[in-house]
Amino acid sequence: MVVVRPRAGMTFGLDNLPYGSVIAPDRRRVAVVRFGDAALDLRHVDGTLFADGRLDAFLAAGPDAWGEVRGATAAVIESDTQLLLPLSDAEPVLGFAVADYVDFYASEQHAVTAGRILRPGTDPLPENWRHLPVGYHGRAGSVVVSGAPVRRPAGMLGPGSFGPTRRLDFEAEVAFVVGRPGTEIAVADADEHVFGVCLLNDWSARDIQRFEARPLGPFLGKSFATSVSPWITPLAALTDVRVAPQQDPAPVSHLQETDPPHGLRLALEVRINGAVISRPGFAGMYWTYAQMLAHLTSNGSAVRTGDVFASGTVSGPGAADAGCLLELTRDGAEPVVLDDGDRRTWLEDGDEVVISGAAGALTLGEVWGRIGQE
Amino acid sequence: MVVVRPRAGMTFGLDNLPYGSVIAPDRRRVAVVRFGDAALDLRHVDGTLFADGRLDAFLAAGPDAWGEVRGATAAVIESDTQLLLPLSDAEPVLGFAVADYVDFYASEQHAVTAGRILRPGTDPLPENWRHLPVGYHGRAGSVVVSGAPVRRPAGMLGPGSFGPTRRLDFEAEVAFVVGRPGTEIAVADADEHVFGVCLLNDWSARDIQRFEARPLGPFLGKSFATSVSPWITPLAALTDVRVAPQQDPAPVSHLQETDPPHGLRLALEVRINGAVISRPGFAGMYWTYAQMLAHLTSNGSAVRTGDVFASGTVSGPGAADAGCLLELTRDGAEPVVLDDGDRRTWLEDGDEVVISGAAGALTLGEVWGRIGQE
Repeated sequence: MVVVRPRAGMTFGLDNLPYGSVIAPDRRRVAVVRFGDAALDLRHVDGTLFADGRLDAFLAAGPDAWGEVRGATAAVIESDTQLLLPLSDAEPVLGFAVADYVDFYASEQHAVTAGRILRPGTDPLPENWRHLPVGYHGRAGSVVVSGAPVRRPAGMLGPGSFGPTRRLDFEAEVAFVVGRPGTEIAVADADEHVFGVCLLNDWSARDIQRFEARPLGPFLGKSFATSVSPWITPLAALTDVRVAPQQDPAPVSHLQETDPPHGLRLALEVRINGAVISRPGFAGMYWTYAQMLAHLTSNGSAVRTGDVFASGTVSGPGAADAGCLLELTRDGAEPVVLDDGDRRTWLEDGDEVVISGAAGALTLGEVWGRIGQE
Repeated sequence: MVVVRPRAGMTFGLDNLPYGSVIAPDRRRVAVVRFGDAALDLRHVDGTLFADGRLDAFLAAGPDAWGEVRGATAAVIESDTQLLLPLSDAEPVLGFAVADYVDFYASEQHAVTAGRILRPGTDPLPENWRHLPVGYHGRAGSVVVSGAPVRRPAGMLGPGSFGPTRRLDFEAEVAFVVGRPGTEIAVADADEHVFGVCLLNDWSARDIQRFEARPLGPFLGKSFATSVSPWITPLAALTDVRVAPQQDPAPVSHLQETDPPHGLRLALEVRINGAVISRPGFAGMYWTYAQMLAHLTSNGSAVRTGDVFASGTVSGPGAADAGCLLELTRDGAEPVVLDDGDRRTWLEDGDEVVISGAAGALTLGEVWGRIGQE
């Protein structure tokens, strides 16, 4: 087994303080804030809000509560590190119940390259793409925590052909966790509703996806598993990495960005079996999370506590900065080479994929998964 | 206001006994079985299972419990009709929490006609269509109970153009409610997991849908509201209307139907402002609910208690039997005429749409909604 840790020198410090839930050694579920390689049981901060070991009530409580708990947590940790429990004996689990899960498609590089590969002969960027954040609903029940086994799915590979996927891929994404419910949420109000970010791997079976997706979009090629990192970094920790998106033409008025903007200068890194194969940057994403949320709720649809929406594959401008094998291997034509000389077009059984992320010197942790047999 | 009732002569009798939840006059939530225009508080049958006024625990309990409760309910009603509470003072609500919501596309008539309209110049039936039940994930949080107001959604109608939809449509569908969780569910085992059926209106904004849907499928053109009828008829009441689907080519082995088959001879009826505009038959659907469930879970994805999956628009073979205005009006070109001489291409503010259903002499009730202003 390949054991992977956050990048050397990057820790979970007082400027980060991400939230999660763990199963403690006594098998009880505890809501915690991570600090270094330890965690603070949040009942030391609020015995009521975190009584059930889950983050749901806290997420629903909204930004005033988020700020108060963050301040109080830092104060408790600074005053008495004796209260910290080591994470070595604790098992991270999903900190909240996922309500609806939406996946966007907000990287222009990814949309263009995927369009060229999947829809040859057409304009790779659909007519709508610069006018709204294209997205679709995924399967909330398939969202699993980092480390959960990912079994190679079977599916329809073509007419009359059912079998294990031969084109198993990852997609490196950033996901946003909704706290306070709302509808018709203005771009300027996004941070009243979005609590924080985590990393997400939108595992994809490209052959299943390609055969099934016309005309209603991705379905079983995605729904077998979607892994998320266990630690939710609050937006409050990301104020220093805000960046304005570059958009042409200007979006319609309710999708226009504000000051401060909601782009985020995050750095992702993807490793297969320990070998770094890509370093996608998030700063160049075309649409921001605030624009995604404004669009998602612009038709009167409400978001609920526990809704997760993800960016779509994060691909940088360089061919080596792509966030999935579909792009990195040009649809399987050009293998990537791992450290030990192994080559990969698609993922093989036993492969371990780790997506890590950072915001400046602050780590977002990682989401990892190992491919099991069908 | 137009008040619509179940078709004359059709009642909720002992051969039906559908399940739901109501808000009683004392504002408490009660899980009930409907009988005629009254209902039995299910705590008379099982004080523990139905203590919270919801059906979730009962749905999760599985087919043995479903059979026991059904038998006991009939016995209680037969022994003492004094226990029944009149529904006139009770407000039906959603009986369970919707986990994931999936919408299929299982009517060949609908797929062909919609394909001709939405993708002119291409083969209207996609290559995959006869090989798997095409479907997509919808928004669980947007599922509302019959009668909830449906506000005309705004959305992106084209490049740079945001405004209220001008092409608001209904879709008449049959939905299936999952009770017992499971994965890789065989067609023959479907009834171990599917509890029952209700009617569903998949409200659709055709202009929003058309602009947004490439390449990832329907999104905000659907997610503003999906209405379901409050009464869930158990599959146990539908054994007499089983019918085998007609499929060519034969599906792959795990999608092949069994004996008894899972097609259902249901009759739907759609009214706008009281005028019957369509009577789609469900018996001719290409894919059955058991095949949909087998497909949905064939990649290792699990269904959970409260999952809802719907058939997609039910359209019969005749042009007048279509389950949506897109087909009935040929994309707005040929208005339908209502009883009072009014014409409709798309739904107007104040319009009331009622979809009712029957299985032989047994009513499935109705799902209705009225269009409010944006």
